[in-house]
Amino acid sequence: MKSDLDALMQANGLDAILVTGPAQHNPTMTYFTGLVHLSQGELIKPRGQGARLFYGPMERDEAASTGLDTKNLYDYPFKELLKETGGDRIKALALRLKRMFTDTGVTRGRVALYGTSDVGTSYAIFNALQDLMPELELVGELEDSVLLDAMATKDESEAEEMRKISRINMEVVGEVQDFLASHRVKDDILVKADGQPLQIAEVKARINLWLAERGAETPHGTIFAIGRDAGVPHSAGTPTDVLKLGETIVFDIYPAQQGGGYHSDFTRTWCLGYAPDEALALYEDVWAVFQEVMAALKAGEDCPQYQDLTCELFEARGHATIGQDMTIQEGYVHSIGHGLGLFVHERPWFRKQGDTADKLDPGVVVTIEPGLYYPSKNLGCRIEDAVYVTPEGEMEILTEYPYDLVVPVKA
Amino acid sequence: MKSDLDALMQANGLDAILVTGPAQHNPTMTYFTGLVHLSQGELIKPRGQGARLFYGPMERDEAASTGLDTKNLYDYPFKELLKETGGDRIKALALRLKRMFTDTGVTRGRVALYGTSDVGTSYAIFNALQDLMPELELVGELEDSVLLDAMATKDESEAEEMRKISRINMEVVGEVQDFLASHRVKDDILVKADGQPLQIAEVKARINLWLAERGAETPHGTIFAIGRDAGVPHSAGTPTDVLKLGETIVFDIYPAQQGGGYHSDFTRTWCLGYAPDEALALYEDVWAVFQEVMAALKAGEDCPQYQDLTCELFEARGHATIGQDMTIQEGYVHSIGHGLGLFVHERPWFRKQGDTADKLDPGVVVTIEPGLYYPSKNLGCRIEDAVYVTPEGEMEILTEYPYDLVVPVKA
Repeated sequence: MKSDLDALMQANGLDAILVTGPAQHNPTMTYFTGLVHLSQGELIKPRGQGARLFYGPMERDEAASTGLDTKNLYDYPFKELLKETGGDRIKALALRLKRMFTDTGVTRGRVALYGTSDVGTSYAIFNALQDLMPELELVGELEDSVLLDAMATKDESEAEEMRKISRINMEVVGEVQDFLASHRVKDDILVKADGQPLQIAEVKARINLWLAERGAETPHGTIFAIGRDAGVPHSAGTPTDVLKLGETIVFDIYPAQQGGGYHSDFTRTWCLGYAPDEALALYEDVWAVFQEVMAALKAGEDCPQYQDLTCELFEARGHATIGQDMTIQEGYVHSIGHGLGLFVHERPWFRKQGDTADKLDPGVVVTIEPGLYYPSKNLGCRIEDAVYVTPEGEMEILTEYPYDLVVPVKA
Repeated sequence: MKSDLDALMQANGLDAILVTGPAQHNPTMTYFTGLVHLSQGELIKPRGQGARLFYGPMERDEAASTGLDTKNLYDYPFKELLKETGGDRIKALALRLKRMFTDTGVTRGRVALYGTSDVGTSYAIFNALQDLMPELELVGELEDSVLLDAMATKDESEAEEMRKISRINMEVVGEVQDFLASHRVKDDILVKADGQPLQIAEVKARINLWLAERGAETPHGTIFAIGRDAGVPHSAGTPTDVLKLGETIVFDIYPAQQGGGYHSDFTRTWCLGYAPDEALALYEDVWAVFQEVMAALKAGEDCPQYQDLTCELFEARGHATIGQDMTIQEGYVHSIGHGLGLFVHERPWFRKQGDTADKLDPGVVVTIEPGLYYPSKNLGCRIEDAVYVTPEGEMEILTEYPYDLVVPVKA
């Protein structure tokens, strides 16, 4: 968690962290600033010191509200920087970063780079900075970064944020189920009061509305996929699809607070009215594996073993898995889960990172989401809960909701 | 516009473009893919050829729906890449990019990098790619990039998207005005049916709701700032602030389609009930300058001249301007406008880019937004419309809405 960051930086030989970009929809910046209205900032955190936020003068109040040590970017007048670099704007921005580092006491050592922003612009500026400060080693990491390691374990206030967004999520899922159930059926299809078929686009519009009513949003969309689409794990669903009884619907919803705060993540598979035998058999395999994996979760264990376990369990039930062949498109084709927080996908990972493995440490929030996919049979099924590993090592399910496959509709 | 891209690449000596990241909330990717549910992709566009989209296999249907030439990332098995790089994952990802470039026919020349994604990870991978392909020159540009040059001029279908989101925006602004006017006044403050003061957070929650009802969102928040906050251009407003009669409210709303499509952008300044003399005088200065600048707009002209004009006009009225002193915090402190599209701020810019200036070319959409700010007097005022320069060179206002300062409330 955040209080571990200095120790993690030490263990990984990092002397400072630079985070760039806005404060919203930019998890690594939000982690330090909270969800303030900052359209562009730079944040430098030296090891063993608090973070300093550099802000544009029009956003001085928002910057101050973060409680961080702040500094106005106008203290580095751009016209003068441009003069010094002969009009080269990329070099001028690099020179400004050099001054910011120097003023913060960072003049040598390893500096990790973070932030969701324009990758081309950053590439040019960071390379120019590297030329200006050869005594710095600028480090880009993958999804196993030091900062993501700190972010993986949530403190009590973060856990509470995640409970809050999950409660909102469950309310919205309940609204969706009630909404579907409130429709009449005609020729095995849900129809509205005007007799027209209900379409997936309309379900999604309602979801966005119910989330907005609760101060939440789905920055990455929502999966509401029926029939063949349900058989493709990340198919978001076809907007004009109608809702036919007996077809599997994969409903995967992962909202965050407005502006991109902590996420919830949850999936159920539904059949409206009834479940054909083939769908029921698929569901029962997923449900059995879901229960076995959930029961096996134990604080402190290596995460990748749960992916191995899931593959074994599905294989024993006769399904092809990604454990046998990375390229399959039918069977069990993805990971058993992922960490969840300010990113919808973050540490801990359930695949090995080089030689090391992430652990189910107290404080992490992970998803557990076994699924089976048979697009050729118009079938797909996934069940997903978000689980918080408490400081005491208990598994707290954040997404309590019935697991039933069949959603009753009006006769 | 998009059809100019090859010619612009030629003129700027670019042989290819690489765009990385998801398809949502990533304007340069969305420009090619549309708003599909693609959580991570790579797109390579060689000059003179169509773009090729590389996608993850779980998102194959979404990738196909873009209509682009597509290729599955699993065609570059990661395990084998890892073997070739001795287990170095950053090098393996760079090697994959090298293969992707090579397979697309890009083996030499200048390649511009785009995309909103993790800047640290990209920095590491691009540098490793540069080592692997020394015959490529990887180019990072600033906000005057070649791709942003193409994006600046909208084709007819893009203009229609921008009209659509602006109509939605105007409906929501109307809802906000009606909502405010529907409240009772007690001790000069708007109160709800329960007698409690209406707070800004509640106004913003309604805004998000009315946008969601119309398929839109505000990915960067909304400015609804009263009193002193109105005097700080980018202050988003204090959530717990109440709505007091006679104080200036700066209401700046810039929504996009759900997922981050084309934007609208619009500002009005309102005083509830009545306007004190000082607020009215400020408003009249801004309104006069707004009208003069709007009347001066002419297709094909250099944009920065309108910033110069605005400074001259405000100075003639006795206000300090950023044209005289970049560091002022009272008076006219920002730019007269900016281009608008998939980015909320994009080309054309109203400041000079090095030695060149963006132009008000047919096809651009720009904001015109003069404002005056006196936080020490609890006063701020800005008026903003979005203007489309039609192919015929006419100025089409996309954000038609009354300009009145005073918003009537119940007696």
